Amino acid sequence: MSVRPLVQSLLDLFRSGNIKGFLARAQQAEPADLGDVMASLDESERVEVARALPRRLSGQALIAMSDEEDAEETLVALGPEDAAEVVDQMPDDDAADILGGLTPEDQERILTQVEDRTDVDALLKYGEDTAGGLMTTQMVVVQSTATAVEAIEAIRSQSEEDEEFIDVFVTDDHGHLVGILPIKRLLTSQPGRTVGQFMEEAAIRVGPDVDQEEVAHQMTRYNLSNLPVVDSSGRLLGRVTLDDVIHVVEEENTEDMLKFGGVSADEELTASWGDAVKSRLPWLYVNLATAFLAGAVVYVYQATIARNVALAVWMPIIAGMGGNAGTQALAVTVRRLAIGNIPAGRSAEVVGKEMLVGLINGLANGVAVALVAVLLGEGAILGLVVFLAMVGNLFVAGFAGALIPIVLERLDIDPAVASSIFVTTFTDVCGFLLLLGLAGWLLIH
Amino acid sequence: MSVRPLVQSLLDLFRSGNIKGFLARAQQAEPADLGDVMASLDESERVEVARALPRRLSGQALIAMSDEEDAEETLVALGPEDAAEVVDQMPDDDAADILGGLTPEDQERILTQVEDRTDVDALLKYGEDTAGGLMTTQMVVVQSTATAVEAIEAIRSQSEEDEEFIDVFVTDDHGHLVGILPIKRLLTSQPGRTVGQFMEEAAIRVGPDVDQEEVAHQMTRYNLSNLPVVDSSGRLLGRVTLDDVIHVVEEENTEDMLKFGGVSADEELTASWGDAVKSRLPWLYVNLATAFLAGAVVYVYQATIARNVALAVWMPIIAGMGGNAGTQALAVTVRRLAIGNIPAGRSAEVVGKEMLVGLINGLANGVAVALVAVLLGEGAILGLVVFLAMVGNLFVAGFAGALIPIVLERLDIDPAVASSIFVTTFTDVCGFLLLLGLAGWLLIH
Repeated sequence: MSVRPLVQSLLDLFRSGNIKGFLARAQQAEPADLGDVMASLDESERVEVARALPRRLSGQALIAMSDEEDAEETLVALGPEDAAEVVDQMPDDDAADILGGLTPEDQERILTQVEDRTDVDALLKYGEDTAGGLMTTQMVVVQSTATAVEAIEAIRSQSEEDEEFIDVFVTDDHGHLVGILPIKRLLTSQPGRTVGQFMEEAAIRVGPDVDQEEVAHQMTRYNLSNLPVVDSSGRLLGRVTLDDVIHVVEEENTEDMLKFGGVSADEELTASWGDAVKSRLPWLYVNLATAFLAGAVVYVYQATIARNVALAVWMPIIAGMGGNAGTQALAVTVRRLAIGNIPAGRSAEVVGKEMLVGLINGLANGVAVALVAVLLGEGAILGLVVFLAMVGNLFVAGFAGALIPIVLERLDIDPAVASSIFVTTFTDVCGFLLLLGLAGWLLIH
Repeated sequence: MSVRPLVQSLLDLFRSGNIKGFLARAQQAEPADLGDVMASLDESERVEVARALPRRLSGQALIAMSDEEDAEETLVALGPEDAAEVVDQMPDDDAADILGGLTPEDQERILTQVEDRTDVDALLKYGEDTAGGLMTTQMVVVQSTATAVEAIEAIRSQSEEDEEFIDVFVTDDHGHLVGILPIKRLLTSQPGRTVGQFMEEAAIRVGPDVDQEEVAHQMTRYNLSNLPVVDSSGRLLGRVTLDDVIHVVEEENTEDMLKFGGVSADEELTASWGDAVKSRLPWLYVNLATAFLAGAVVYVYQATIARNVALAVWMPIIAGMGGNAGTQALAVTVRRLAIGNIPAGRSAEVVGKEMLVGLINGLANGVAVALVAVLLGEGAILGLVVFLAMVGNLFVAGFAGALIPIVLERLDIDPAVASSIFVTTFTDVCGFLLLLGLAGWLLIH
């Protein structure tokens, strides 16, 4: 990864001890650049920078760091008082995110020093991966009896300085969400009209416990820049913004990729080796148990192999090709399920297509391996055996690669868990059964 | 996938022939719901619905369909005149997307009937996966000499009715982008001040040929809701909005998942079986070539296997475990590279961690297989062989799974192409070399 010039020059200034130059240049940097600077430093340097920067920039830099654990450690290392001053400068949802990762003791030590902890405390109640954990309580709210002029005044007084997009939420006098005012409607209405007369319905809303994946799905599906979060009685609690959702989408995609690769979805990309072992070893043990299945098939056919050792050469070829064809079908199907691309009632069609693709690819590769077998002088019958085993295994691979995730989805199990581990074991077993079974039947009798 | 009640009731109304009821309910539906209705219908029903709906809703439904090819076919099937009326009602960027997928003849047939084709023509010039292909030309623009009051008036006159977030772009009198006005600043400024005095710098901007992945990266990195697109002289051409970028992120993630599974990145998830074969067969042939490598290793050791057929039972176990451990390391590393999670100068650390994880998991699984071998009565020496082969193969798997994608990234090759195909072949070869080589040395001599 190449380093941006601004990031590099900030690092150079800091390391050459030119703190004054560093601070001057940091003022012009974007939060993401400051986050990158932090990521390239070691723990003690990070603390030094976090102390040197103005509180607001320190907060931005910590929020922007891609390694959350490093950011949390740095915050704690600042000591409760300095940390609280930095937290004071953070938007409430970011403050809750970073504080939520600390031990309860560290959290409390900092929060007791924070000027106004009400909003952060409210957000800390919610699970990290829920709408409540994602939302901010900072928003522009007016009552439905307010006039257009009053609503514009509310934007002036309630919104943040650098807020880029603003919806005005409309509530009744008990705080229940009744509508939303797009800015354009607000600017084009008569100044004296009450907002209740020209607001839009706020039909799409979620409760605070809704999973973040569902939140992302709703916002992308309905192209919302702000999704209101309401309690069970419809009282407005906060809003989720689209930029938070992009990070959720990235996070969910990371999880899907990891699960697909047989890694626990909660393994942090920056996990230590110890955590990585803890996350992956259980899956490898599962795989070992299933691998013994494939081994057992070979065990049954030991006599067949002993009579014709050349079969051992074809074993990894037939099994490996099945595994890869199965992984292809699996990747496409898991992804289709993830983005809701399989219309209702069309599952059979999807599985059928993958079976057909497997069959055709099996024929194409079967001919190739049969030719090689014959050219190597292994005889027409072995050629026929490897041809049939390849066709059969790739057909089964297409079937399993598509069907397994669809069935899991129906059972409300995350289909990405049907990782390559299961499909490759499945195709190993089928491949050996076909190759060795057919050979035992055709070659030896 | 469960169908939303509204989508189901629309389908029921349409299929029972109650077109009036269908149209009444469709007015209340969101575009995404209409898109789902279309996706559940067959070609001729889709055309019927597209004709029955008001032009504006037809356009929204076609844009919202997840299968772009189906949407394009439906548009063409409407005939040029009706199609043009539907296109007239689409935002220019969506119109360009759907028209861009047609044959040049169909495209021209429709465009000659379109009322004002200037904007769509301009957008069609750019590649589909570039900033130009993603941007809209609809925006609010004022000159830097305008007053705050004039800028608010520009929002009234230039923005779309249902636009949710608005930035005002500021240009000089030759159309060069000079700044951006966040709405909050606009509303809080003195009415008579010129916008040049209180606008923000528009430092982050891209050219129309910049790849969409880079666009998404910039917008998420800097939390932008609108990214201005400018030509080489800095003249404002359009803007990319955050909701487009979410779809890009989803698309890029689909591509990464497919490549990781050994499928061409340009295979549509809804590809026909013929296109799927075309996309996957070349990869399977590549895999076949590499699988012959693994076969060749076994070929060399045929004599060893002939003397001790039990080795054939352990072959898939050692090779399969290596493949899965390698896929784990690969999934984590590919994902880290995709989201820029490996700080500069830390590559060696990443590879080192994966090697250590592989070694420890190798020890844990090696002990397990050695125990099984001894308990099955295969003797201590075979136990030692499978132990060493497992440790060695998982160590190599960690090394290859992390190093291969990092090296590819350095060479400017997409690291996701280091798909499971290559890593599993690599671990097959190493696994067989270790298992059969050690066995030949320890068991037979």
